[in-house]
Amino acid sequence: MIDLRSDTLTKPTAAMRQAMATAEVGDAVIDTDPTVEHLERFTAELLGKEDAVFMPSGSMSNQIGIRIHCERGTEFLCETEAHIYQYEQGAFAQLSGLVAHPIAGENGVLRVADVQDQIRPETDYMVRTALLCLENTHNRWGGRVLPHDETIALCDWAAENGLRRHLDGARLWNASVAKGISLGDLAAPFDTVSVCYSKGLGAPVGSALVGPKDLMDQARRARKLFGGAMRQVGIVAAGALYALQHHRDRLINDHEAARKLAVAACRSPMIRARGDRVETNLVVLDVHPDWGTAQQFCEKLEQAGIRAFTFGKQAIRLVTHLDVSPEQIDRACKILVEVADDPVADTADASQDG
Amino acid sequence: MIDLRSDTLTKPTAAMRQAMATAEVGDAVIDTDPTVEHLERFTAELLGKEDAVFMPSGSMSNQIGIRIHCERGTEFLCETEAHIYQYEQGAFAQLSGLVAHPIAGENGVLRVADVQDQIRPETDYMVRTALLCLENTHNRWGGRVLPHDETIALCDWAAENGLRRHLDGARLWNASVAKGISLGDLAAPFDTVSVCYSKGLGAPVGSALVGPKDLMDQARRARKLFGGAMRQVGIVAAGALYALQHHRDRLINDHEAARKLAVAACRSPMIRARGDRVETNLVVLDVHPDWGTAQQFCEKLEQAGIRAFTFGKQAIRLVTHLDVSPEQIDRACKILVEVADDPVADTADASQDG
Amino acid sequence: MIDLRSDTLTKPTAAMRQAMATAEVGDAVIDTDPTVEHLERFTAELLGKEDAVFMPSGSMSNQIGIRIHCERGTEFLCETEAHIYQYEQGAFAQLSGLVAHPIAGENGVLRVADVQDQIRPETDYMVRTALLCLENTHNRWGGRVLPHDETIALCDWAAENGLRRHLDGARLWNASVAKGISLGDLAAPFDTVSVCYSKGLGAPVGSALVGPKDLMDQARRARKLFGGAMRQVGIVAAGALYALQHHRDRLINDHEAARKLAVAACRSPMIRARGDRVETNLVVLDVHPDWGTAQQFCEKLEQAGIRAFTFGKQAIRLVTHLDVSPEQIDRACKILVEVADDPVADTADASQDG
Amino acid sequence: MIDLRSDTLTKPTAAMRQAMATAEVGDAVIDTDPTVEHLERFTAELLGKEDAVFMPSGSMSNQIGIRIHCERGTEFLCETEAHIYQYEQGAFAQLSGLVAHPIAGENGVLRVADVQDQIRPETDYMVRTALLCLENTHNRWGGRVLPHDETIALCDWAAENGLRRHLDGARLWNASVAKGISLGDLAAPFDTVSVCYSKGLGAPVGSALVGPKDLMDQARRARKLFGGAMRQVGIVAAGALYALQHHRDRLINDHEAARKLAVAACRSPMIRARGDRVETNLVVLDVHPDWGTAQQFCEKLEQAGIRAFTFGKQAIRLVTHLDVSPEQIDRACKILVEVADDPVADTADASQDG
Repeated sequence: MIDLRSDTLTKPTAAMRQAMATAEVGDAVIDTDPTVEHLERFTAELLGKEDAVFMPSGSMSNQIGIRIHCERGTEFLCETEAHIYQYEQGAFAQLSGLVAHPIAGENGVLRVADVQDQIRPETDYMVRTALLCLENTHNRWGGRVLPHDETIALCDWAAENGLRRHLDGARLWNASVAKGISLGDLAAPFDTVSVCYSKGLGAPVGSALVGPKDLMDQARRARKLFGGAMRQVGIVAAGALYALQHHRDRLINDHEAARKLAVAACRSPMIRARGDRVETNLVVLDVHPDWGTAQQFCEKLEQAGIRAFTFGKQAIRLVTHLDVSPEQIDRACKILVEVADDPVADTADASQDG
Repeated sequence: MIDLRSDTLTKPTAAMRQAMATAEVGDAVIDTDPTVEHLERFTAELLGKEDAVFMPSGSMSNQIGIRIHCERGTEFLCETEAHIYQYEQGAFAQLSGLVAHPIAGENGVLRVADVQDQIRPETDYMVRTALLCLENTHNRWGGRVLPHDETIALCDWAAENGLRRHLDGARLWNASVAKGISLGDLAAPFDTVSVCYSKGLGAPVGSALVGPKDLMDQARRARKLFGGAMRQVGIVAAGALYALQHHRDRLINDHEAARKLAVAACRSPMIRARGDRVETNLVVLDVHPDWGTAQQFCEKLEQAGIRAFTFGKQAIRLVTHLDVSPEQIDRACKILVEVADDPVADTADASQDG
Repeated sequence: MIDLRSDTLTKPTAAMRQAMATAEVGDAVIDTDPTVEHLERFTAELLGKEDAVFMPSGSMSNQIGIRIHCERGTEFLCETEAHIYQYEQGAFAQLSGLVAHPIAGENGVLRVADVQDQIRPETDYMVRTALLCLENTHNRWGGRVLPHDETIALCDWAAENGLRRHLDGARLWNASVAKGISLGDLAAPFDTVSVCYSKGLGAPVGSALVGPKDLMDQARRARKLFGGAMRQVGIVAAGALYALQHHRDRLINDHEAARKLAVAACRSPMIRARGDRVETNLVVLDVHPDWGTAQQFCEKLEQAGIRAFTFGKQAIRLVTHLDVSPEQIDRACKILVEVADDPVADTADASQDG
Repeated sequence: MIDLRSDTLTKPTAAMRQAMATAEVGDAVIDTDPTVEHLERFTAELLGKEDAVFMPSGSMSNQIGIRIHCERGTEFLCETEAHIYQYEQGAFAQLSGLVAHPIAGENGVLRVADVQDQIRPETDYMVRTALLCLENTHNRWGGRVLPHDETIALCDWAAENGLRRHLDGARLWNASVAKGISLGDLAAPFDTVSVCYSKGLGAPVGSALVGPKDLMDQARRARKLFGGAMRQVGIVAAGALYALQHHRDRLINDHEAARKLAVAACRSPMIRARGDRVETNLVVLDVHPDWGTAQQFCEKLEQAGIRAFTFGKQAIRLVTHLDVSPEQIDRACKILVEVADDPVADTADASQDG
């Protein structure tokens, strides 16, 4: 079985396990944990920020990032398909009482023109607009890398208008490798950035929020509140540190593999890669209704040996990662061609009859 | 000065004041207040519901309506320009921890096709979709009356999918008069409806939430929580009751007046009535940038004797009501023609120079 | 029937109704309402504060007072029996996410010794202590007036330790009259004070929060959020203004009447006035179990012509007010003597048999 | 240095590290993680409950336990010194909008008589009482084991009155060993129980909430909301599993060591073990003001080679655990005798002069 459901599925390698087994640890709540400190320092330096806070999950990093930027009575701007709005159980509202202000971008990309009239005027009728959140790479838009110049322009506009900037950079490693732009440059326009160690990098667990020292102190306090403060968590941090040191460069292979998958699938006119491009390790394929439903597409793939997730009614997502070999990619390409060429929809059947 | 900023500006008439001065009252928290009871019963009957709860404001009616429908961890669907999402300081999130899921409609009207893929699937990543909220008439869309058949279809769809239905009917009185559909018929597709006495009807204060008995008991409890339970409030309720009994039929005059204003303003090609129609007492005029900004348009109106609100950067809103006389409407029409014909924008000036 | 359940039961007098019927009004949300402005100015001056905000209820005044003082992640100190903690449906937590830190005082009075070790140290394990809330007169402790010197000492301590001070002064009018201390002096140790017009003063509806200008601006914004912003509410404010101008001095009569009731009831050794004194218009009578339950005591009173509330299992509360005549007080005294002398408890009966 | 600050300080043993390094893992969010499943099943069986949910921290287990029991508008009863009320940053209010209703027990033990009048009557003035929370062993009361019969009586009372029961059992392992009562018997009176692997058991990270299947499903959803869902977290779970299998019986040694420490310290009349007994691995020593402050006591201990935490102004806490050897305990006893015999307070010095 070729498992292309998510890059979170990767299992720790032997070397990574060894690093974890021998990690130096301490009580990270009462004292400090040296391995966590090492990881936080290294991550902050990579991103060009003052400090980093290790978190149990990317959702916690994002939702605490939002919380520390947004006082009571405020909202944040985000693209309609943003993970923080769609996929984090509305924690911003449930836990922090905040409002999301989603705005549709073109292929997931927000531009200044999209947002410039969206800051709330000062009136007792309305919340105040406090924060702009972006996502790079953009999960729902097929791993799209945000155009760097647009991001800089958007963040400049936000700063001029008194908005803080937070980046959901769960897969920022991929964006950096794909575009050859340093992590520091990608993070520079933002006050805070969340990153994930357990996606493409292959660590078993962990995320971090990075940013200026004073905000990271607030984030540590919020992490205690959310129940995310763990004790000798250096064991886990050691896996993340190993991943960061050894698994970033190889992401380029995942991107190449993803492109192959998309090319194979799109030989059929009924399948389209979302946004007409594959830039990183995510491939969102829009399935034409004449082929059938995404659900049916996934079932056919499963029968042929590929596991994938649906992404709404007429799309599926494929993700390449550390635990998929080049041979598996080649096999997956063949399967995709076959499945794409074999529609199941009644309308399709009908047209074939004709 | 002709004040067209809002129908909330109306002042109580002499007869209404008399009704208030002589109202029978009681302690509505400890016992009951007979005038409040009368108003609640009369309102519930008009709307064809079991019970009604008197509230100090329309915002409280709406936000309590949302709260009693939506358990922790849920969201409500609404049109992007809905008052509850835009103009009530995000109380759904701030006070109730809920998520708004705004969806753009065509001219403010949501149809089944717009929402049918928007119910969240059951997954721990997502909130649950619990409620559909509509607004009739639609304030931001120029007092648009929701097409009744579409509303029925939409609410049927919502009910079939397990969603509750709440109507922000602050100006439902206007919709009923404008379309000749009874209040009961307009309210029938919804579980709960909020109505306002202090807008077109001209009462000084008050709103109500109507619906089934069990939900209204919950609403009374929530009203105490929000600080909206008042004592001998029959004094206020008497004004609302008077308005309800005497000022509904005359709303047709406000609608006719609003149409006149729109026709006058739209003689200029630079001014357009939003949605290309005026159905009730609200007129939203989109001002072409070649004319200038909405702010400039309002200033010119003010100099000429009309007060109006801007509605974003390139629109203004005019509202007709009880305290605007036919003579004032005639004068306002003349002013609108003159102002609309006299653009201030540099681009306009430039083209005139040419 | 002599209704001693609450001073909120008072109905507007003819003169008060006249003042309401002829009140000058405006749209208090869009513009201002002149009568509300008058009331707010007058109240602020009486209390010696910069500004006041008219509210629909005392609960809203208190809960908004707490909200504007307490940022996310903080708590307030209060006496265990405080109204804000016991009787306002936990709005501080439900609507504002705040923690109450109740501390038992002696007869409802907190002293520095009670609270000085209760400020939380700075640690990520704990909320931060932000506010001290007192209540004068203290409802649950039988209308007890806080000892003024203790209050000053306590508020000085709070200020030195960086805590804000809020006073629930729903019946501060009574405290002022009872002790001959000006309202300004009673309010001086506090940042904000809530007062009620609809209790002993006899207005039908209304409360205010008073304090410095910048905090009152925040309170106005929070009032909109809570749904407490009303339109031509000058009608209501006129009743409160009349009450403030005409009904304060006569509170001394209510106090004298309350003392008479307590003396009558306490002729029985089975009845005790809580805290062994009656200072204002509230009388809390602790009923010895040998007499029977508070529920039984109230039922007997009801049969004899007095309505009263139980206050827990073994206490009842009597409240004197504007709508109870001297003749009714005399009759009530007789009834109390009779009921108190006629225990219903089995144990009592048994002991009598012996 | 002998570190007696907390049993959370223990570091994973070599065998435990080996178990973690070789643990079988999976994506616990998308699929399941076999080691987590094993740990959850084993924990649930030990506690005699249907299901268990692995959590990153004891605070998350407790706060999610409270959340799933308490609907909007409710409160929970707890002892005033409970960890959930004092030491978890008020998450019940900050994240879940709930009210804590603390009640002082005798030496930390609540009895039916203490709580039986504390359930709120049904009224719109008040929150509803939904839950009783106990803590066994009781941290702030020196590791006190709750008297089992009292606990059963209290939980029976709670059940009869419609309250759910949650136990903060972070150190329930210690209670079981100390009293020879099975974990299942200790957990039986409760709907849900939280347990910690990273305290006396010595695992680096982790906690669990146990209870019936339907509630645990809700807990898993809440864990995602709080950001506590982790991927290949079997690595961590393996440490907890090892601890559970190998480190429970040895807790008896920690208890014996704690008793020795208390006996040594209490040879001085100025030092008292809180509650006059030491039952498990926590020792809270109340320091008489004539000796000096807790801060001073800790400083003297530190100079002599013991690290301990203050517990308020006049108390310190000592904790015995896996990483303290018998030799260290002997040395610690000598140090305690010396320090306790050498008061630093001025008053003490003065009396010595006399």
